[in-house]
Amino acid sequence: MARATSTPLVTALTCVRCGRRSRHGLDGPCPRCGPEGVLDVEYDLARVRRAMTRQALAARPRTLWRYHELLPVPKGGRRPAWEPGGTPLVASPPLARWAGVRRLLLKDEGRNPTASFKDRASAVGVTRALARRARVVACASTGNAATSLAGAAASVGMPCVIFVPEFAPEPKVAQLLIFGARVLRVKGTYDETWELCQRACDRHRWYNRNAAVNPSLVEGKKTCGLEIAEECGAEVPDWVAVSVGDGCTFAGIWKGLREMHALRFIPRLPRMLGEQAEGARPLVDAFVEGRDLVPGPAETLADSICVGHPRNWRKALAAARDSGGAFIAVSDDQILEAMREAGRRAG
Amino acid sequence: MARATSTPLVTALTCVRCGRRSRHGLDGPCPRCGPEGVLDVEYDLARVRRAMTRQALAARPRTLWRYHELLPVPKGGRRPAWEPGGTPLVASPPLARWAGVRRLLLKDEGRNPTASFKDRASAVGVTRALARRARVVACASTGNAATSLAGAAASVGMPCVIFVPEFAPEPKVAQLLIFGARVLRVKGTYDETWELCQRACDRHRWYNRNAAVNPSLVEGKKTCGLEIAEECGAEVPDWVAVSVGDGCTFAGIWKGLREMHALRFIPRLPRMLGEQAEGARPLVDAFVEGRDLVPGPAETLADSICVGHPRNWRKALAAARDSGGAFIAVSDDQILEAMREAGRRAG
Repeated sequence: MARATSTPLVTALTCVRCGRRSRHGLDGPCPRCGPEGVLDVEYDLARVRRAMTRQALAARPRTLWRYHELLPVPKGGRRPAWEPGGTPLVASPPLARWAGVRRLLLKDEGRNPTASFKDRASAVGVTRALARRARVVACASTGNAATSLAGAAASVGMPCVIFVPEFAPEPKVAQLLIFGARVLRVKGTYDETWELCQRACDRHRWYNRNAAVNPSLVEGKKTCGLEIAEECGAEVPDWVAVSVGDGCTFAGIWKGLREMHALRFIPRLPRMLGEQAEGARPLVDAFVEGRDLVPGPAETLADSICVGHPRNWRKALAAARDSGGAFIAVSDDQILEAMREAGRRAG
Repeated sequence: MARATSTPLVTALTCVRCGRRSRHGLDGPCPRCGPEGVLDVEYDLARVRRAMTRQALAARPRTLWRYHELLPVPKGGRRPAWEPGGTPLVASPPLARWAGVRRLLLKDEGRNPTASFKDRASAVGVTRALARRARVVACASTGNAATSLAGAAASVGMPCVIFVPEFAPEPKVAQLLIFGARVLRVKGTYDETWELCQRACDRHRWYNRNAAVNPSLVEGKKTCGLEIAEECGAEVPDWVAVSVGDGCTFAGIWKGLREMHALRFIPRLPRMLGEQAEGARPLVDAFVEGRDLVPGPAETLADSICVGHPRNWRKALAAARDSGGAFIAVSDDQILEAMREAGRRAG
């Protein structure tokens, strides 16, 4: 008999550090390697291919659950009432002209329930927490991940604890409180806040939503790549460009594209372009020099990618290398210019 | 031969003040009555019924353009690249329990392109401006309508002018500038800003997006009512509750429901519940006392409905009366409580 937590199409979890394969561990890192050993979820793609046909997809709602065979969630289990995904992929000829490319498509992730990409990960995280009958779900963040988790947890009535560094801005904290989250302000840096959240989750058996150590969250992020592939079909883009902080989003989108290629939804794979800020470019340096990551400084006005120690660096570097892609660094002035041009040329 | 501006299914425009019917005037008020004479758009519903069947709708994308027969836009004309509508209607049992009703559905308008309901009106407004070959589109606002118009205009490369009172907050102005809008700060009150925008549009023949004097904009807002009706079908809600400022949204949703009733998508009509703040309740007073509107004070923390002189009061009062509905006033404390409960119970 299937348990509430059963995910029959998941075949294995592989540690990106030690390479050990296991059947368990959908919600945390490799037990041998700890946080450095991020796991990767593998599926029985032959069985997925039989169930997730183009015809089957055509009849499903345009949310991330349309790909449930490729997600580590039990079929038919309880899920958040708000549903991310199905965001528009819109061509912008004026922006393509500015960028000097033939065609440029924008994936409008602002159309998700709490207006961010993170909703994809939070929806899968909260669904896993429900399947595991967790009493509480938690994360450390001051940004979109926190808002997203608080919203997803509220929509299913699950208590939520958010750890924020003491310098977290008031309006962001107010938003969390509106969602009914318990907000713990930590006297310390962001890294110390993150560590405290890890320890609290271990001690109290809270469900840990920190994407860098929980492979199921990257599976949620993957759905953006699944959507791009399904929508583009034969018209595969040459490049998929993503701004990169800890690397989970970049790696997740690449994984989604690879799976859709294996399932023959797309005839070839795009190259992955990872973009970091000049002031926070540890992945660019590791990529260019062909070496492992060395944490570096982090200073940029682009706060979501102001990360000196990307927690998911192995998966991110592999995505750029395996796709024949690249990492590049852009200055804050270039970021501001791109914001302006995207705003005025594409609305 | 059909002109680019032809809207063959529109049969007449009727002034809500003098009752005069006309075939022209889709973009402004009654020429006889001026701004007090808001026009109402009528369609050939028999022809609409033949074209806009349930079967036809099933094949159309989930955006507001799926109802193009019921919109004052030329078929196949150029439209903004981002598309509002198709927002989720989500049941929240926990919120229903708190409110003491059997069933409660939330229409999540934050899922629109610039995260507000106003995108429905701006999309239709910009499409009309394109059809009329306007050089510039303009409005007076400090809020969602301005952001929405600036985004819609940018997506089609149309110059946009926004009039804001000098006290407009910097972050809101920054957002408009990102979209490439020309922002004119007016030394004066909001009402003076509004008047100046009207005069500038008249003098320079700019397309005027102010919803209270432009019936096409209310048609855009109507699509929310069309969606509610299409989705609910036989399960018509008893009440549709809407917070009310100038009355355009409230009147628009009611018009959409009425048209879908006439087209037999729903078997009966809901009652309309208009909600104003205690400190800005001119429509509540006019409704309760069964009289015309008398402008009153406007003081509430709910800034979007802080309106002492609702410009579309005739349509709003008619919606409440014709539907067997009501207007009620709620205190700022009640508004804050409802925000909290909606956040923590429904996410």
